[in-house]
Amino acid sequence: MTSLVKMGRLAREAAFELSSLSTDAKNNALEMIAVQLERNAEVILERNARDIEAGKRKGLSPALLDRLLLTEKRVQGLVADTRNVIKLEDPVGKIIDTRIMDNGMRLSRRRVPIGVLGVIYEARPNVTVDIATLCIKTGNSVILRGGSETLNSNKILAEIISDALDQAGIPSKAVQYIDDPDRSHVQKLLRLDKYVDMIIPRGGQRLHDLCREQATIPVITGGIGICHIYLDESADRIRALDIIENAKVQRPSVCNALDTLLVHESVAERFLPQISKRLALSDVVLKAKGKALEMLQSTGDGCVVEEAGADDFDKEWLGLTLGVKIVADLDEAIMHIREHSTEHSDSILTGDEENAEKFVDRVNSAAVYVNASTRFTDGSQFGLGAEVAVSTQKLHARGPMGLEELTTYKWIGRGSGHIRN
Amino acid sequence: MTSLVKMGRLAREAAFELSSLSTDAKNNALEMIAVQLERNAEVILERNARDIEAGKRKGLSPALLDRLLLTEKRVQGLVADTRNVIKLEDPVGKIIDTRIMDNGMRLSRRRVPIGVLGVIYEARPNVTVDIATLCIKTGNSVILRGGSETLNSNKILAEIISDALDQAGIPSKAVQYIDDPDRSHVQKLLRLDKYVDMIIPRGGQRLHDLCREQATIPVITGGIGICHIYLDESADRIRALDIIENAKVQRPSVCNALDTLLVHESVAERFLPQISKRLALSDVVLKAKGKALEMLQSTGDGCVVEEAGADDFDKEWLGLTLGVKIVADLDEAIMHIREHSTEHSDSILTGDEENAEKFVDRVNSAAVYVNASTRFTDGSQFGLGAEVAVSTQKLHARGPMGLEELTTYKWIGRGSGHIRN
Repeated sequence: MTSLVKMGRLAREAAFELSSLSTDAKNNALEMIAVQLERNAEVILERNARDIEAGKRKGLSPALLDRLLLTEKRVQGLVADTRNVIKLEDPVGKIIDTRIMDNGMRLSRRRVPIGVLGVIYEARPNVTVDIATLCIKTGNSVILRGGSETLNSNKILAEIISDALDQAGIPSKAVQYIDDPDRSHVQKLLRLDKYVDMIIPRGGQRLHDLCREQATIPVITGGIGICHIYLDESADRIRALDIIENAKVQRPSVCNALDTLLVHESVAERFLPQISKRLALSDVVLKAKGKALEMLQSTGDGCVVEEAGADDFDKEWLGLTLGVKIVADLDEAIMHIREHSTEHSDSILTGDEENAEKFVDRVNSAAVYVNASTRFTDGSQFGLGAEVAVSTQKLHARGPMGLEELTTYKWIGRGSGHIRN
Repeated sequence: MTSLVKMGRLAREAAFELSSLSTDAKNNALEMIAVQLERNAEVILERNARDIEAGKRKGLSPALLDRLLLTEKRVQGLVADTRNVIKLEDPVGKIIDTRIMDNGMRLSRRRVPIGVLGVIYEARPNVTVDIATLCIKTGNSVILRGGSETLNSNKILAEIISDALDQAGIPSKAVQYIDDPDRSHVQKLLRLDKYVDMIIPRGGQRLHDLCREQATIPVITGGIGICHIYLDESADRIRALDIIENAKVQRPSVCNALDTLLVHESVAERFLPQISKRLALSDVVLKAKGKALEMLQSTGDGCVVEEAGADDFDKEWLGLTLGVKIVADLDEAIMHIREHSTEHSDSILTGDEENAEKFVDRVNSAAVYVNASTRFTDGSQFGLGAEVAVSTQKLHARGPMGLEELTTYKWIGRGSGHIRN
């Protein structure tokens, strides 16, 4: 494998070329990628089959194997996704703002690519194509590092993409893949600050922690959501049943799914049996303490109920479990969220506008909802056209990141002999 | 000293309160700080005198001692600066954008404080007041760590500010100062990711490197500028003399001062003697190689000229030295800047609009100028009202950072029972 320092240098050189490309040139390259993915479907499937075989030998779960699997239809999906990126608006070159300074100099800010990204991800091989195409569209180079379970699939996909770039007259090193499974390369990538401008980890808590610990490059951490819904006294309880069900069961394995339900004490006695019965239809298991536990345990036809452990309100369930807690009022709900939220997505269900505004003001999560499901926190739902990652840190971008979040800006000062007094 | 973890926890609690304060409440607190600084001028000067004495005993240079020194007039300056912050627009609460999603849910982004900042700085005690007041204005808590040379001055300033906050009914822990000179506290601060959202180092390269290496928190690095001016063939050479002189000598000790002059070969023979004579009036020393060296050495009444060493084009001079190089054309100038620039501020002097646009497009610095001095890269020059730092990294903010760059945003989704399909 090419050394990581060399990959970094090549990526930076490619980024220099990419930064000046027209939108048309970038779209042509994307179309070439789509064409080549289509043409090479067979070899992609053949390489993916090797990964799947190896995965079976390793005893990976059927669910994980399904995530790794590429089929003819899924390859067609990759092709379609690539063509969708062509349709997205190119943020590069946009003028953010312009002003004429007192001395007559024109000062503006123009969107430019960030430069070189390092993206570390797990499992699904479609991320390789997703990220590569979004980077090309925004004029960024990228160094990719996927999970070892899909090494063969990722390698061939990255190869096809590089070849397509080459054919389109764009530096093929704009997309590079770290194909040596040795883990030390991840650590090296995280310290390649001379060449890499931003690290995006897409994976679990451990990967994010590793990046935060080791990186000398800015890292976009995120993707971990301990999400809350607070049911206020004045909430429409019929709608609440739908919203809570949606937030919990529509796709329980993702970061914006509901983890903890907080219920105002004055409505708990009526509402807890109702929600327990509703969620029982989806085999949800409830975790509660004290009075809530009692109420839920005495509900017939309700969910399986277990006593909540000490740290159960600090867990991202990623499955059909839900913590339930009774709170005295809105303030206690806000305090609970402050203590236990990962600042991803939290929602209040209420008929009281003052309480809604207080919740929105005081709950400091990337996405705060009123009378809506937490499941909306998502690039495509938010109309960003794409989703690079979901950030739960505060700098650069918060929440879903689209194409614009793959850019930065430069200040441009246009003078006519201007000097500073 | 309170333990750093405790400081972090207190800062976060204070930030929670601060985030909901009205602009009026924050301005009242700032006025209280101004009043208390005024009232306590005597004790501030007395503590500062201790720092100055200790500095003299340590043998600090007169220039550094002058930077540390507070006088009655300088304290009045701190008071005036604080009142200026009152006048600045509060970015918190502003709506960045709003859209109605296809399903009817209203989605907007609202500016909110970042939370808790850690600021590490050197020398001048006025930074303590600057940063503290800008943080209060934007609803952020801050943990400050100044240089040991001004420990007494910084401590009393931070104490006065905290007391003023208390009197204004705002949590006094919004501004805390690490008053134990032990260096291990800096390292602890850099790893306090549970409580601190952003680190801003204000100092030299070593401090920035330390932060980049050690921090598990996003760091705004910057403040290092190897700045270039390229004199194109078609430039107005009379204006060029003024611009280059301004960029080099108006304030040579700062990051946006000129470090390297690149001159198109077709005009070098005429221009180099002219600029050498002009800069000789300010005792500038030139560093050059080859033909440029020859031309400059044969100029009468010119600058002192020395042969440039191997890494002289990679130096931020911070003084009256200037590297000079002849380049064949614009492309070579751009290549030189790509290799040697710290992406802070670079300028082209030209009469050719196409070359101007190419330079602006291909030189990827935080600030790029056409026919203007590099000295403009500055928060107040750019009309930001204040300057927290100058960022030369790509994320969150580039170039001068004002109040807005001390904020982030939250997404707010307002529904009426909305669930995701």
